Amino acid sequence: MASVTRIMLGVNESSLKGYPHPSISSKGAFEWTINKIVRNNVTAFNLLFVHVQVPDEDGYDDMDSIYATAEDFKNMKERERIRGIHLLEYFIKRCNEIGVACQGWIRHGDPKEVICHEVKRQRPDFLIVGSRGLGPFQKVFVGTVSEFCWKHAECPVLSIKRTADETPQDPVDD
Amino acid sequence: MASVTRIMLGVNESSLKGYPHPSISSKGAFEWTINKIVRNNVTAFNLLFVHVQVPDEDGYDDMDSIYATAEDFKNMKERERIRGIHLLEYFIKRCNEIGVACQGWIRHGDPKEVICHEVKRQRPDFLIVGSRGLGPFQKVFVGTVSEFCWKHAECPVLSIKRTADETPQDPVDD
Repeated sequence: MASVTRIMLGVNESSLKGYPHPSISSKGAFEWTINKIVRNNVTAFNLLFVHVQVPDEDGYDDMDSIYATAEDFKNMKERERIRGIHLLEYFIKRCNEIGVACQGWIRHGDPKEVICHEVKRQRPDFLIVGSRGLGPFQKVFVGTVSEFCWKHAECPVLSIKRTADETPQDPVDD
Repeated sequence: MASVTRIMLGVNESSLKGYPHPSISSKGAFEWTINKIVRNNVTAFNLLFVHVQVPDEDGYDDMDSIYATAEDFKNMKERERIRGIHLLEYFIKRCNEIGVACQGWIRHGDPKEVICHEVKRQRPDFLIVGSRGLGPFQKVFVGTVSEFCWKHAECPVLSIKRTADETPQDPVDD
């Protein structure tokens, strides 16, 4: 048997308000991977978590803030960094509990492009992306990372749609 | 840990001439699944092979045949049936060698529709489909089962593209 199977997971924050926590689809994809693929064979897998922060969008949470000096922007950047770290911490902690090896890192840019680039760079055995499972009409407005990765990532891609009972009131939320 | 993980694989015949053998992408997807997911945890997985025979296309191999009586058509149908069984035999044998539980069955119709229907009927934990990894121009002419299943199958879908060195002279062949 070859060396461990390296699985890359693209993870992102929830769009629902509150403390930075993983999106419904990221969390679902992770738990599914553990239950259905890793199972009790924990030493055979290595999970690689990529969190891509979108530079402009992330600023929206700071709408109440007033930016007056260069220092304010530096503070915002620092808050973003901390949010990203908290997100990764969630997954890293879960992996430690389960006993499966893992790594996580943060990148900036367009998530779909960055994830495909990270696949090129890290050469995982496959990539897992959660998906909101939106219909074609909703997709026009929000794009889909999973569809782009499915087409362009240079490795096998597993896409995991959110189940109907996980879908929030507004399905564009995640 | 829950019951075994049930993986459905859509498998088809090669379009290259000769004895009925699996397509390059079906074989590749199967071996990949064993090496990267099942690994040595053979008792934790159950592989479900679905082979969909396309009623009209399968007749092409019989171009030299003369159909004069109802009996001739019956013979053709019988040959088709045998080809399908030989194809499944390949995968079932490999699974027996490896020691992983499996089942295989044959259906008739449009592969993409039938596979999605079998997902509904069998409720596997996920579906694996091999893909030729054709560019958008070639896709116009041949359609892709994997893309349709990725969008419509009611379970997570893992698509495995053929690697560059597995691609035959004519990439539409498989």
